[in-house]
Amino acid sequence: MQRRIAILGSTGSIGENALRIVADHPDRFRAVALAAGRNWGRLAEQARAFRPRIVSVADPADAERVRALAPSGTVVLSGEEGLSEVAAGAGADVVLSALVGAAGLSPTLAAIEAGASVALANKEVLVMAGELVTARARRRGLGLLPVDSEHAGVAQALAGRPGTEVRRVVLTASGGPFRTLPLGSMSEVTPEEALQHPNWKMGPKITVDSATMMNKGFELIEARWLFGLDPDRVDVVVHPQSIVHAMVEFVDGSVLAQMSVPDMRISIAHAMSYPERIPLRVPYLDIVEVGALTFEEPDPARFPCLAHARVALREGGTAPAVVNAANEVAVASFLENAARFTDIPAVVGAALEAHEGSPAGDLDSILAADRWAREFAACLLNGRNPKVRRWA
Amino acid sequence: MQRRIAILGSTGSIGENALRIVADHPDRFRAVALAAGRNWGRLAEQARAFRPRIVSVADPADAERVRALAPSGTVVLSGEEGLSEVAAGAGADVVLSALVGAAGLSPTLAAIEAGASVALANKEVLVMAGELVTARARRRGLGLLPVDSEHAGVAQALAGRPGTEVRRVVLTASGGPFRTLPLGSMSEVTPEEALQHPNWKMGPKITVDSATMMNKGFELIEARWLFGLDPDRVDVVVHPQSIVHAMVEFVDGSVLAQMSVPDMRISIAHAMSYPERIPLRVPYLDIVEVGALTFEEPDPARFPCLAHARVALREGGTAPAVVNAANEVAVASFLENAARFTDIPAVVGAALEAHEGSPAGDLDSILAADRWAREFAACLLNGRNPKVRRWA
Repeated sequence: MQRRIAILGSTGSIGENALRIVADHPDRFRAVALAAGRNWGRLAEQARAFRPRIVSVADPADAERVRALAPSGTVVLSGEEGLSEVAAGAGADVVLSALVGAAGLSPTLAAIEAGASVALANKEVLVMAGELVTARARRRGLGLLPVDSEHAGVAQALAGRPGTEVRRVVLTASGGPFRTLPLGSMSEVTPEEALQHPNWKMGPKITVDSATMMNKGFELIEARWLFGLDPDRVDVVVHPQSIVHAMVEFVDGSVLAQMSVPDMRISIAHAMSYPERIPLRVPYLDIVEVGALTFEEPDPARFPCLAHARVALREGGTAPAVVNAANEVAVASFLENAARFTDIPAVVGAALEAHEGSPAGDLDSILAADRWAREFAACLLNGRNPKVRRWA
Repeated sequence: MQRRIAILGSTGSIGENALRIVADHPDRFRAVALAAGRNWGRLAEQARAFRPRIVSVADPADAERVRALAPSGTVVLSGEEGLSEVAAGAGADVVLSALVGAAGLSPTLAAIEAGASVALANKEVLVMAGELVTARARRRGLGLLPVDSEHAGVAQALAGRPGTEVRRVVLTASGGPFRTLPLGSMSEVTPEEALQHPNWKMGPKITVDSATMMNKGFELIEARWLFGLDPDRVDVVVHPQSIVHAMVEFVDGSVLAQMSVPDMRISIAHAMSYPERIPLRVPYLDIVEVGALTFEEPDPARFPCLAHARVALREGGTAPAVVNAANEVAVASFLENAARFTDIPAVVGAALEAHEGSPAGDLDSILAADRWAREFAACLLNGRNPKVRRWA
């Protein structure tokens, strides 16, 4: 039977790869709804190729342009309402949540309310609101299927065994481009250097997050919620080859590791077709050609963001949302050459310390913490706050 | 609920480790029957410690000695009949088949007829009679649970997914003590050198089989039957650290690898408690301390036994039984300093070539092929056969 797929973020790299999988498996999948941000031209092409019931774009003016190009059977919407309709109004079986940032939160919750399984690529959804989102999915008896290669790896390595049999979940990190840079040079790193990820092609924000290992810290928080794990049972090792994505250690001393070439279609397809696996046109892993898989501890002096994430993970409540927001502001500032690379962990750490913890049981508290942290980080970066002296 | 365990081969290393697991988990397991070979003293100790319903020893005279020491509630038997009673007469839920050699075949079939799940450590059962044994277990709807670390690794990495989703199963091999020895020195290898396995402590026969990689060839044949795989879908890579035991590559390009420290209790317990996992007092894998996992192709010039096994695997019928029997005779001769290390693959290859293939649908054909190959190998090694000139 065909599975109806809706994609939030269809013109991004996750969305495009998901549509390649739909195109390769027309017997299994049908794209029923697509939402993009500003790339209305590409969205119109996708509408013509896949003939979804609904498409949506951020700006109403862009929606007019799409309407002129889309097939007659496709409803073209825009803005918040359009996102909500793509998520909840097209009768999708699986909603691929691949918007960037906090914008993905509301439509993801709408998809869950509409009874769809969510294939989750949007990091912020679980980092900011993991407790809320997983509780709602659980209440509806719906799956949250990770799209991230690390979490898709965990899901596969868990192999359906219960959490009581799990001793530890280990996510791997490539260590990014600065794993072996002299520590003293970290503050001189430029945006151009930070955007050279050794193994994956991704957007600029997440590439910088990989270089600071903030990304891996977020993934610890996501893993905690996706798999219902005690914060002390999730861990990180540096694995520069990015072949092993995750390992699950069981109480009997056995470890299952999930591996593949770094191709995001593998985990996207896994989420789309779960629990089945479908043949993909991806290169198979040649372990002999890879030759050696190496593992090392992450260096805490080099990657302070990882420790900040752990503090937020243990503290819970709105602390992860604060870390996420402060990091977003600091990374944007770094990419504009307005802050140093080492300012990113400093701003995140200062925000985490200054933040007053509160529960994250509702969306309003989370969004308030997010706003507070953005303002706090901006003040620090503009030198308007006395705390500047503490971290500069 | 307690699982009733019978052990064929209770005084060997697999049996002793299984009994340690029983002793550590009295709530889960009860040893109801134990069979040993000649080690009657140790069997009597086990009988006193575990109070099984039945014990058995090879020799009737030894049975008398055990009877004098065993608890009054324990029936003491001997010989073939004793083995059969331990396998089928004690109402075991799981029979651990850990006898060495062809002697394990009949009691394993008896266990299946009695409706027990078989935890299979005896290599010959599947190498000689894989088709027969798996067909009988399937007919009774019973599981065959591998105890070998490689096959237990495959079972875990398959994670319950159907064979249609599997592209390839890869077993790892340490490469043994002669992986890097100059090729020209292979014929000078002594039994003492061959008995130094780099990672595992095992009996002498299997340790030599590891050094020739005949053991890995047998494991290919076992994997074919245990998991119902096409012969071309099972493969071997050399992995000197013996941390990764097996890998399953799926049609979507994802690979699940099973890893652990080399401790056989992990796979023994997995088979005993399947599908549950139980906490074990084993060292956990520290992947950072291991540091690097390396992989290479097995060298066909160094390990001709692997190619012989592949031929037997593809040919099927009684060919694997012939390889097994010829190898057993050649290894015994090598261990007595009556043959060279390189004579082992030569004898196996000659037997395989001289053998007339026949189906292996019944026990008699298999045992006839086994006898033929033993005689053939002995003649070759004693120089009584004209074929000697072909391989010497």
